[in-house]
Amino acid sequence: MKHSFRGVVPPVVTPLTDSGELDKESLARSINRMIDAGVHGLFILGSSGEVVFSTDQRRREIIAATMEVVAGRVPVMVGCIDTETKRVIEHAKVAKELGADAIVATAPFYALGGLPEVERHFRLIHEAIDLPLFAYDIPVCVHTKLPGPLLLQLGKEGVLTGVKDSSGDDVGFRFLAQDNANAGHPLVLLTGHEIVVDGAYMSGADGAVPGLGNVDPEAYVRQWDAYQKGDWDAVRKEQDHLASLARIFTVTRGVAGFGAGVGAFKTALRLMGVFNTNNMPDPVLPLEGENVSAIEAVLRDRGML
Amino acid sequence: MKHSFRGVVPPVVTPLTDSGELDKESLARSINRMIDAGVHGLFILGSSGEVVFSTDQRRREIIAATMEVVAGRVPVMVGCIDTETKRVIEHAKVAKELGADAIVATAPFYALGGLPEVERHFRLIHEAIDLPLFAYDIPVCVHTKLPGPLLLQLGKEGVLTGVKDSSGDDVGFRFLAQDNANAGHPLVLLTGHEIVVDGAYMSGADGAVPGLGNVDPEAYVRQWDAYQKGDWDAVRKEQDHLASLARIFTVTRGVAGFGAGVGAFKTALRLMGVFNTNNMPDPVLPLEGENVSAIEAVLRDRGML
Amino acid sequence: MKHSFRGVVPPVVTPLTDSGELDKESLARSINRMIDAGVHGLFILGSSGEVVFSTDQRRREIIAATMEVVAGRVPVMVGCIDTETKRVIEHAKVAKELGADAIVATAPFYALGGLPEVERHFRLIHEAIDLPLFAYDIPVCVHTKLPGPLLLQLGKEGVLTGVKDSSGDDVGFRFLAQDNANAGHPLVLLTGHEIVVDGAYMSGADGAVPGLGNVDPEAYVRQWDAYQKGDWDAVRKEQDHLASLARIFTVTRGVAGFGAGVGAFKTALRLMGVFNTNNMPDPVLPLEGENVSAIEAVLRDRGML
Amino acid sequence: MKHSFRGVVPPVVTPLTDSGELDKESLARSINRMIDAGVHGLFILGSSGEVVFSTDQRRREIIAATMEVVAGRVPVMVGCIDTETKRVIEHAKVAKELGADAIVATAPFYALGGLPEVERHFRLIHEAIDLPLFAYDIPVCVHTKLPGPLLLQLGKEGVLTGVKDSSGDDVGFRFLAQDNANAGHPLVLLTGHEIVVDGAYMSGADGAVPGLGNVDPEAYVRQWDAYQKGDWDAVRKEQDHLASLARIFTVTRGVAGFGAGVGAFKTALRLMGVFNTNNMPDPVLPLEGENVSAIEAVLRDRGML
Repeated sequence: MKHSFRGVVPPVVTPLTDSGELDKESLARSINRMIDAGVHGLFILGSSGEVVFSTDQRRREIIAATMEVVAGRVPVMVGCIDTETKRVIEHAKVAKELGADAIVATAPFYALGGLPEVERHFRLIHEAIDLPLFAYDIPVCVHTKLPGPLLLQLGKEGVLTGVKDSSGDDVGFRFLAQDNANAGHPLVLLTGHEIVVDGAYMSGADGAVPGLGNVDPEAYVRQWDAYQKGDWDAVRKEQDHLASLARIFTVTRGVAGFGAGVGAFKTALRLMGVFNTNNMPDPVLPLEGENVSAIEAVLRDRGML
Repeated sequence: MKHSFRGVVPPVVTPLTDSGELDKESLARSINRMIDAGVHGLFILGSSGEVVFSTDQRRREIIAATMEVVAGRVPVMVGCIDTETKRVIEHAKVAKELGADAIVATAPFYALGGLPEVERHFRLIHEAIDLPLFAYDIPVCVHTKLPGPLLLQLGKEGVLTGVKDSSGDDVGFRFLAQDNANAGHPLVLLTGHEIVVDGAYMSGADGAVPGLGNVDPEAYVRQWDAYQKGDWDAVRKEQDHLASLARIFTVTRGVAGFGAGVGAFKTALRLMGVFNTNNMPDPVLPLEGENVSAIEAVLRDRGML
Repeated sequence: MKHSFRGVVPPVVTPLTDSGELDKESLARSINRMIDAGVHGLFILGSSGEVVFSTDQRRREIIAATMEVVAGRVPVMVGCIDTETKRVIEHAKVAKELGADAIVATAPFYALGGLPEVERHFRLIHEAIDLPLFAYDIPVCVHTKLPGPLLLQLGKEGVLTGVKDSSGDDVGFRFLAQDNANAGHPLVLLTGHEIVVDGAYMSGADGAVPGLGNVDPEAYVRQWDAYQKGDWDAVRKEQDHLASLARIFTVTRGVAGFGAGVGAFKTALRLMGVFNTNNMPDPVLPLEGENVSAIEAVLRDRGML
Repeated sequence: MKHSFRGVVPPVVTPLTDSGELDKESLARSINRMIDAGVHGLFILGSSGEVVFSTDQRRREIIAATMEVVAGRVPVMVGCIDTETKRVIEHAKVAKELGADAIVATAPFYALGGLPEVERHFRLIHEAIDLPLFAYDIPVCVHTKLPGPLLLQLGKEGVLTGVKDSSGDDVGFRFLAQDNANAGHPLVLLTGHEIVVDGAYMSGADGAVPGLGNVDPEAYVRQWDAYQKGDWDAVRKEQDHLASLARIFTVTRGVAGFGAGVGAFKTALRLMGVFNTNNMPDPVLPLEGENVSAIEAVLRDRGML
């Protein structure tokens, strides 16, 4: 495998124009800013990359524009996120055609099922696509928790290359990291919990996929470097700063979920001059008024403006 | 509006060939059987119609094949079920192009949000597509319960034509039916709870969308006719029969969710000679062995074989 | 068995004085009013009887005061609701000592467990107490759904005399009622779903435990009588009235759960002169101001004032 | 305040005799072993101390026996865990009478409610009992998550002395710890997540309440000492050992919840000669056969036998 997929791999937030088109100029600016900061990879079309809001055409545009800007400087993981196997494989074929370095898939969702279906889902995707496959464990969205022993088994067999853990289950992550180490480290384990990356590094994570890395990529890179050197005080200090910066999620009022979270990212990036707008995909509305001011205050407090 | 959408409107189960293609022969046989039994409409690409397992191309095939067989004999409602607004609208445009009489959409799913997004979602779909729009209330799949007052408001404004209720909330349905009656009956209220349709009729439902209607459409039509005449003993007697027939869901072992439910429908229809196979969409496997025998015993007990 | 426990068995709402003591005068007035209306039994110390808010001493007072007022006119079921087996058995012993005709217990709650513990819980209670035992299926409070097959098995063995179903699972209730009938009717099946009792009667319920029966016991008795005669139009008509009356739950603002539900009962009963106060147990506050006016308007509309 | 309540405060597992009585001999042995290892306090009648399985009389016995053994060597926190306010206050009065140094209470459970009731619940307990009050945040048992801002507000007002966090929400804990530090540290923040204590220390926890501390108290004390010295490599190394030891939870089969978790503690303590039996409270059965062997193997691997 040419890439290690270790380190800081931000999930790229997707900028839109005022009319709702992909804003390629802002996308290029944001990607270049993250690569210049030293991130080790990029993950496009993740949950915060508005994958489920994006039509097939829009997904193509995002992949193509990203690959053009990145130009091989870092590996690009592409979220192929959809309800069931055949739809995921369709997206994965497009991702491969457009140059993805790895694909990322969740458990099936919407239809009810059991673990046999989940396991077969990942096996079928792997059989269909000759690219490294990451399992995306995000029960808050798909309502299935991927069990650690299943992930490890699929890693040992070469079905999975790694896991992006957004499960919120830090105990399960610790057990998985320990089992993975004992098994010769078949899986690359990335945490999506941007606010407690230090804890995930204590547990042995191989990297992080922090949405907040769109806003402050340098801090996550510094944190990673400190982790590599065993400088835990620095790891923790960066996390304390990032937890303070993460208050952009909690200072808003009257919004929830994607609109609050990704809305805060887009608003921060617009305030910082990285994005041209903070426009959101239908049916979500952009943050405005006092919510924008509240985010601005957080950025100012953190020295980001 | 040309159609009332009242009465028995089975959600059409999708037959597959052994190789996983759409089995148009079986589909035609099943649809004709239901229309001959007197059903008042058909709902394709619902949850049990494996909509979320179907690629865009497969969805097109199902709609086109159905419209050709139905040939205007009953109205056809088409499920346009996907994660977020723009994707739903794309499906709805295809449905309209291929001749759908109404479209059916759920609340957004996967991404987290709130009721403002749910409301705007339905408004945007309605604005984009000039067809009657039904809200599909299925929290077990989308993890949002559509509140009765919101549904009624959207009905009064003409955004929604009706509701397909698969919420499992019989109290909420009673309140909604009563409020709808008091407001002049703007909404057509269809229950998806095939096992307690008699209770839904007591609450004032305008019809039913019973998956089990693929297996025994005559019984649901007899029940509807009894309801229209106020013959409640007959309504109840048909339901008792149908609840016994519904044991095809509970006699199987080692399967769950879609694989158990739609798997039972497909297996029953194959045993009855309506479907050529009981093949299931990836990653689900078809029922086999003792599970098939158990379903056969139920059918035999109910006089369906 | 001396009692059938069939018919209308309201869960008795517990009146408090302004200082939070048991208001025995109001309790007697309310109980006599329900017995005069023709109810077939009473269920004290249920969820709406504020059992979990009541200390052991308060529970004793409620049982004793009730037994004295009832004086054998109807059977009295006593909720022995607590976290785990030994605590439930302690309550059950007190209930038996004070003259209860049956006891009612939920699945264990707070501690996590599985079905083996649930089954053993009911068996141990039955072994310890020589009184008819009803299982109270209320997953919204205890977070375990009692499976129909387990209930039926315990009924066949004589461990359980009946089930009070507040599960919200009308499909499961239909299956259980059908299985129970096929097995010779070992269980008495009572529905707690006061707003859709007509549907439960369609499914074959042996009675109802409607909290709203504290407010309008006559209507539930008329409905039961109509059910016994097979007059389904009357069953339905009473239910429509009761669903309208149940708007006392939905017209309030800023309250939720027990405070909204039992708060509405107590406020209605105070407005109707049955209770002296609408005081609520700590930490819940009584309804006041516009919430009281809104409930008054519902009562007036329904001819209850 | 006489005690800081900082450091390692194991939740004491309750030993039973074969006939189900409190095994005071084993209790004394276990408590002395933990105090000798250097723990900074003890928490009795917590979830793993089988509080909800214990009658009032049993709760008294556990408190009295503990206070006698401890004899003031470390502070003792007593869980006063019950459904609603008045019942909790009754338990708290007993705890105070018997010499508790602090009391611990959860949000109300069983009855549904909202945050106003939760807030009033803690205020009423504080008003009634002149002892430090800890809020126990354990949504998996009580189905309410205590919001960080509410906890902090109650801390600032002196209603709460601290929080025992078993919420599983490591992000919320990080935010709370940061807010608490910024507010002058009014709350003592203890984590109950024994498998990721290192992460909680990174977040700034003031101590840990690890059930596994009954099995290996020395390791948690060493970890705390390392934390106090800023020796993060040692903090992490101890945690890796403890996560391996925690496999006593995952090597068993056919058991779940309390029976698996506390069952594993009791079985380990019996194997290690600390407890005389691994008996469990009704309706839970003790681990046996291969489950015991599996736990023995884990202990052996960790050098605990």
